[in-house]
Amino acid sequence: MTPFNKLPMEKVFRDPIHNYIHVADPLILELINTKEFQRLRRIKQLGTTSFTFHGAEHSRFGHSLGVYEITRRICDSFHRHYSIKNDPENGWDHQEKKIALCAALLHDIGHGPYSHTFESIFNTDHEQITVEIITSEQTEVNQILKQVSPDFPDQVASVIQKTYHNPQVVQLISSQVDADRMDYLLRDAYYTGTEYGSFDLTRILRVIRPYKNGITFHMNGMHAVEDYIVSRYQMYMQVYFHPVSRGMEVILDHLLKRAKILFREDPSYFKQQSQLIVPFLKNEFSLTDYLKLDDGILLANFTLWSEHPDAILSDLAKRFLNRKPLKSVAFNPETEKYLTELKGLIKKVGFDIEYYTAINSSFDLPYDFYHPAENRHRTQIELYQPDGTLIELSQASELVNALAGKTSGDQRFYFPKEMLASHQSDTYTLFEDKINAFNRYLKNGAIISD
Amino acid sequence: MTPFNKLPMEKVFRDPIHNYIHVADPLILELINTKEFQRLRRIKQLGTTSFTFHGAEHSRFGHSLGVYEITRRICDSFHRHYSIKNDPENGWDHQEKKIALCAALLHDIGHGPYSHTFESIFNTDHEQITVEIITSEQTEVNQILKQVSPDFPDQVASVIQKTYHNPQVVQLISSQVDADRMDYLLRDAYYTGTEYGSFDLTRILRVIRPYKNGITFHMNGMHAVEDYIVSRYQMYMQVYFHPVSRGMEVILDHLLKRAKILFREDPSYFKQQSQLIVPFLKNEFSLTDYLKLDDGILLANFTLWSEHPDAILSDLAKRFLNRKPLKSVAFNPETEKYLTELKGLIKKVGFDIEYYTAINSSFDLPYDFYHPAENRHRTQIELYQPDGTLIELSQASELVNALAGKTSGDQRFYFPKEMLASHQSDTYTLFEDKINAFNRYLKNGAIISD
Amino acid sequence: MTPFNKLPMEKVFRDPIHNYIHVADPLILELINTKEFQRLRRIKQLGTTSFTFHGAEHSRFGHSLGVYEITRRICDSFHRHYSIKNDPENGWDHQEKKIALCAALLHDIGHGPYSHTFESIFNTDHEQITVEIITSEQTEVNQILKQVSPDFPDQVASVIQKTYHNPQVVQLISSQVDADRMDYLLRDAYYTGTEYGSFDLTRILRVIRPYKNGITFHMNGMHAVEDYIVSRYQMYMQVYFHPVSRGMEVILDHLLKRAKILFREDPSYFKQQSQLIVPFLKNEFSLTDYLKLDDGILLANFTLWSEHPDAILSDLAKRFLNRKPLKSVAFNPETEKYLTELKGLIKKVGFDIEYYTAINSSFDLPYDFYHPAENRHRTQIELYQPDGTLIELSQASELVNALAGKTSGDQRFYFPKEMLASHQSDTYTLFEDKINAFNRYLKNGAIISD
Amino acid sequence: MTPFNKLPMEKVFRDPIHNYIHVADPLILELINTKEFQRLRRIKQLGTTSFTFHGAEHSRFGHSLGVYEITRRICDSFHRHYSIKNDPENGWDHQEKKIALCAALLHDIGHGPYSHTFESIFNTDHEQITVEIITSEQTEVNQILKQVSPDFPDQVASVIQKTYHNPQVVQLISSQVDADRMDYLLRDAYYTGTEYGSFDLTRILRVIRPYKNGITFHMNGMHAVEDYIVSRYQMYMQVYFHPVSRGMEVILDHLLKRAKILFREDPSYFKQQSQLIVPFLKNEFSLTDYLKLDDGILLANFTLWSEHPDAILSDLAKRFLNRKPLKSVAFNPETEKYLTELKGLIKKVGFDIEYYTAINSSFDLPYDFYHPAENRHRTQIELYQPDGTLIELSQASELVNALAGKTSGDQRFYFPKEMLASHQSDTYTLFEDKINAFNRYLKNGAIISD
Repeated sequence: MTPFNKLPMEKVFRDPIHNYIHVADPLILELINTKEFQRLRRIKQLGTTSFTFHGAEHSRFGHSLGVYEITRRICDSFHRHYSIKNDPENGWDHQEKKIALCAALLHDIGHGPYSHTFESIFNTDHEQITVEIITSEQTEVNQILKQVSPDFPDQVASVIQKTYHNPQVVQLISSQVDADRMDYLLRDAYYTGTEYGSFDLTRILRVIRPYKNGITFHMNGMHAVEDYIVSRYQMYMQVYFHPVSRGMEVILDHLLKRAKILFREDPSYFKQQSQLIVPFLKNEFSLTDYLKLDDGILLANFTLWSEHPDAILSDLAKRFLNRKPLKSVAFNPETEKYLTELKGLIKKVGFDIEYYTAINSSFDLPYDFYHPAENRHRTQIELYQPDGTLIELSQASELVNALAGKTSGDQRFYFPKEMLASHQSDTYTLFEDKINAFNRYLKNGAIISD
Repeated sequence: MTPFNKLPMEKVFRDPIHNYIHVADPLILELINTKEFQRLRRIKQLGTTSFTFHGAEHSRFGHSLGVYEITRRICDSFHRHYSIKNDPENGWDHQEKKIALCAALLHDIGHGPYSHTFESIFNTDHEQITVEIITSEQTEVNQILKQVSPDFPDQVASVIQKTYHNPQVVQLISSQVDADRMDYLLRDAYYTGTEYGSFDLTRILRVIRPYKNGITFHMNGMHAVEDYIVSRYQMYMQVYFHPVSRGMEVILDHLLKRAKILFREDPSYFKQQSQLIVPFLKNEFSLTDYLKLDDGILLANFTLWSEHPDAILSDLAKRFLNRKPLKSVAFNPETEKYLTELKGLIKKVGFDIEYYTAINSSFDLPYDFYHPAENRHRTQIELYQPDGTLIELSQASELVNALAGKTSGDQRFYFPKEMLASHQSDTYTLFEDKINAFNRYLKNGAIISD
Repeated sequence: MTPFNKLPMEKVFRDPIHNYIHVADPLILELINTKEFQRLRRIKQLGTTSFTFHGAEHSRFGHSLGVYEITRRICDSFHRHYSIKNDPENGWDHQEKKIALCAALLHDIGHGPYSHTFESIFNTDHEQITVEIITSEQTEVNQILKQVSPDFPDQVASVIQKTYHNPQVVQLISSQVDADRMDYLLRDAYYTGTEYGSFDLTRILRVIRPYKNGITFHMNGMHAVEDYIVSRYQMYMQVYFHPVSRGMEVILDHLLKRAKILFREDPSYFKQQSQLIVPFLKNEFSLTDYLKLDDGILLANFTLWSEHPDAILSDLAKRFLNRKPLKSVAFNPETEKYLTELKGLIKKVGFDIEYYTAINSSFDLPYDFYHPAENRHRTQIELYQPDGTLIELSQASELVNALAGKTSGDQRFYFPKEMLASHQSDTYTLFEDKINAFNRYLKNGAIISD
Repeated sequence: MTPFNKLPMEKVFRDPIHNYIHVADPLILELINTKEFQRLRRIKQLGTTSFTFHGAEHSRFGHSLGVYEITRRICDSFHRHYSIKNDPENGWDHQEKKIALCAALLHDIGHGPYSHTFESIFNTDHEQITVEIITSEQTEVNQILKQVSPDFPDQVASVIQKTYHNPQVVQLISSQVDADRMDYLLRDAYYTGTEYGSFDLTRILRVIRPYKNGITFHMNGMHAVEDYIVSRYQMYMQVYFHPVSRGMEVILDHLLKRAKILFREDPSYFKQQSQLIVPFLKNEFSLTDYLKLDDGILLANFTLWSEHPDAILSDLAKRFLNRKPLKSVAFNPETEKYLTELKGLIKKVGFDIEYYTAINSSFDLPYDFYHPAENRHRTQIELYQPDGTLIELSQASELVNALAGKTSGDQRFYFPKEMLASHQSDTYTLFEDKINAFNRYLKNGAIISD
């Protein structure tokens, strides 16, 4: 409100999840003000999920501030309670705070619009682009980080790549209970209006502590960590894997795929109308090209494409803009065999099955523990007992034990709404027998088993 | 989750404000599924406010559902407690529910991107377009409404235009305590993360009641209505009139103005790059042109314009995308005289004052009562006493009396950040004396008085 | 606020959990106004738990209103969506509402002060007394219920005794997901300030439905029911079984036991000072005697007893009033064998082990399913699938499956704080070797195993 | 959960308002563990208010912890941002923290049961008793405070008496925006389930700052302070002055008065049955007598008195236990004249007007500013402007200006429910004409004016 005074001691951002985001270091403020970071305001956090949970229209900007804020609170608590000065073996080195905060703030900066789908079609990789934004001399982010020291950008990037020498810093940013996951669960729960994602952040911040190989949690906070794992599981089952959002995701996937094929056949339309997309359709894009993208660019192109002469491209573009998801049923290894027959019926009704059907699998591992035989594993969660020994979480929690090491989720077959017997349409009148045949395979939301 | 069953008795939308939005009437569901209504997902509710309150990225889609839901709850309560069958003079006619729900759902459907600024530059009028969308045969909304009866679209439009015969219905949708205002205060408070906007909706819904000339509130709910008025006042002062958001709004205003001028000089660039904007730059747009617009279209054009050869256009486009607001000070009729001198100094430092300065006034009337001498007035709020007589709110509430009939807000002068003495920049080094002269006019966030 | 008008159509009670408790039936209002029901204001819901969670000082009065309110909402939803008129086999008979509401409101009316402990010492039984209050002609409650019909009190009592003919009504009041449990989880979570107990009541109320053998839940609400089971589990583990509250409970148990013994030795003191307690010390009490009891009566007696000449009685009374809990360690069947040695050491330090040590076991069965071989079992939770078939909850939920049929909790040994090596006291100075010997048996909050 | 380990660095109490109460100083923990402080668990914060808002059964114990916690947060913020080391004139001296925390924790320790009424009948004074508990050598509180230094108890007492030399410390504990008021507004709003009392504590803690004459608030936090004043006003109007709670308060007042009169006539009954009350009936009580009192003691006596042979004593005792408030109407100086006639009618119906009628006035001054002409005034609230000057709140806020210096509240006449024409009773049948005459004086909840 007094905008022309000197930068106050501390700047705050009002945040619905953390109340205030506190910024005391001018470096952080400068990073937030870069064009690469401001661009995150134009990229939705949850992509097609807002088609199911209309409240969840928040961007990656707020989430990035949130991850920063949780990291800041943990660093300050570590410094106050577990300084390396008092505990040289297991303590926290306050010098690491700056690098941890920068990595937290920037961990998602490489995300583009509808990342999940976009990446699978255009072979982009947001983690690799994150590293590039941090280390490339072209970016404002890099210029600011270099003010700290010439190798600071590389150090920040190494935290995100999990190669940084201090495992405490790495695990704050990415592990099974990291600042990233803690923020997105709370934030996505808030914006969707569901309560599954809420867990006791204050208590977790009280019981988290560093040790020489990373981070751990006091034994007496076991139930708070357990509750976090359960919340995470429930958010995946109820929100992130929601069948309707996935029904929009497959529309997007097919739409982008169709554009790519049409571009190969005749690039002229796209060169004129969709110049910002062309580098990706060609698969020759620079960091500059990538940084121009956002949700609005894609949607603006879909508005144009909805009048494209190609019937499939324009239909899919309209379905995406006007929220007309494909419908779905679950299937399993046993019932997978009927997919061929189902697709046959859809084809007979007149749909191009390449563009109007899809298989979508969504599976998550709610909690993983150490598998010595495997090369790649997630860091297991460990609890710190009063006598200083550690115990792995699933050993202490029956609930976590129930979820540990098991994948959860489902595999669904997507198809046009017109195939449903209950959908009153001209299609039904014309193809009554085909559609009835199709529906006889379905029961209780799944392909029927024998 | 069982997408291929029959439409269930009632469909719900999870909503963070109202928990669930309940839709029982298929007509409402069909309206929600129109392309005109789905388009509201792509138009932010609060425009530039999210540059100040980063959490407030919600769209007009959720708000429209919210207004519908509040209206639905009120109609049901009126029907249960104050049916016209029991009270022919003051009661509620349940037949009006359908029209009230449609008007509530559609009241904002004519909004476009960044309406406030867009309208002032391009002479569009969202209220008039709302009426057009409802009554024009081209729209899906109109087709669906006509299923009820041929004159139903006109009736719905008349509620929004406040000419409908039943004042109860009109006042539910627009009055000083209507479903629109109640939803946006709660919703904007939730998404900004401020608490000022929260008031006791449940209690208001308990004490609201119809009477022959509109709606009123039971006397024993006076404090809930008072609290709503105070909340509304605080949201205007703290959120809607925030100087930084207005500093982004003036950037947008100047950017669009610049595009209009450049188009007049040479339309070719825009015809090629910005075809969806051209109808507005030309001031020859159809409803179809308007319905293609959304936030993404504008932002995508700004991304393109940021590489336009015109230095002002590209600079303003970048400032908008990268959040570089103009700074401001308050002034009043007494200190207004210094603006000429301030502008003179800004010009000397090298800025084009047409594009880099602005006056922005934001004023609101927190509560208005009946002025018999004036032709146009807002409906006053009336309280229903146990003996059936009415009393005007400001007669019963000291707090409301304090706010009644007074405008609140301020008038600010906007200028480039570089003019601040505290801003370390090359500009300062070059123009130290001009900048210092400029700053001597400023104190405590305002132009200093003698 | 207009107290002398006619009873309005609906009376409301402001409630922090349900916002408003709605009472439309005058019968319910009269029951609330009886002296037996008002007495619940003087009996804390959670007994000694408020010694650990100081916020949880709420009484059984609010909880009873809450159970009534949840039942009311369910009955209204059943009537609207699943009336027996439309579904004679599985539907809900709206005639049952009155009996369901009365049973809900009165289900806890037989509770006395610190029921759990009081009952074990004085052989009272709150369920039996509930039935007596409802059916005895002496009570105001009975007089009011009889206005409905002569056998109405017996019918209400039969619901609480689970012998009522309609299983839907019985299961609303007592089953694994009943109105009682739903209210207390939410309420106790709110008052303790923990978040473990919160689950999505609105969603559960949307998916609950009647069927001929009781109540069930729509399949698509499975995760809400699952979340309720997990919340319940967490509240037991974190709140209801908290070791410190149990450390106060054992003090109370020993205090009442001591009074009983002293009364047998010499009743005169108690006859003079504690006349309201005498009927229980004698084990000859009437319903009238019981209805005079409340938390205040017990505490007032403890204040008197704290000056009693018997050192143990007065010490235990002071410990209870001034919150001096016994300390504890967990043990298991394997380490139980050390209790004799531990008690021996406590005795050597000078404590009467009958009054200054205790075993306290707290176990719960988070979710139970049908065991055909067993006579007594809890009603299992069943989910209603789109095709009308039922599936038992643990078959559909991995989380519930993990908890099903397993008891959770622990067994603890309680002893005086003075026995802890870390406790700086004169006792320690005098008995250092005994105390050190004692502490060598303890590690990480448990008796150490070999 | 690990009760036998050393006192951890910091002990926490879970609190529904502040999430956690943090205690790092062992002195504070010892004070909390005294019998005088534990006694606060047995004294309700809001007395008879829980008869209207059943959720508000919380004790003075939680509130005292809350005042401590807010004070702790402010002290830490002052130390971090406004240390006297950096600003010798206006800064905060961290040495004052201990005394501020003790005064905050103990400021209400002299409260007894139903203080307001009890004090007016028995001439006790909770502020004076607070000072006595702190300074008398008999108390555990005093013993602990003396460990700091021999004069520390007196210093703590002087803060509560507002004579301590440092006005910053005094104003933290008592001023128009102090830790006491901030806690009770939030806490009482939470427990009553109303939302009026909530304001933005986090923001207030951000903008509060010390200066040489006390505490002040940054100008940019003006609206948060304004909101607090409005919340306070609304809590008084809606909760604290609720007519029904006052209808119970007058019952309590008359009950205690009756006991006092009966004691004077014949003390034997009370000496035998009510020994803990006798010192107060005699008006000869010691601190020890006072510290034995709590809500339970009073209520236990009322249970006994409800069988006393005196009809008025036993009837009033039952009315209090069973919640039978007197009814009321508002009156004003103009309509006061009718009270004589109203009382006359009540008398004719057969009620003893000394015990069955009452005048109750509840007025509050929502915000006061400096009156140089008056000797005694409340500290005005001042805002700190960017240039370091102060401005008084009502000069900056229209809302506060509307409330400043004006008393709000009302004056009510209480009488038996039986006098209402709408109350169906035998009394009405017998005295129809008297009762109708009485009701002709009443309209819209007030005595009717000419």
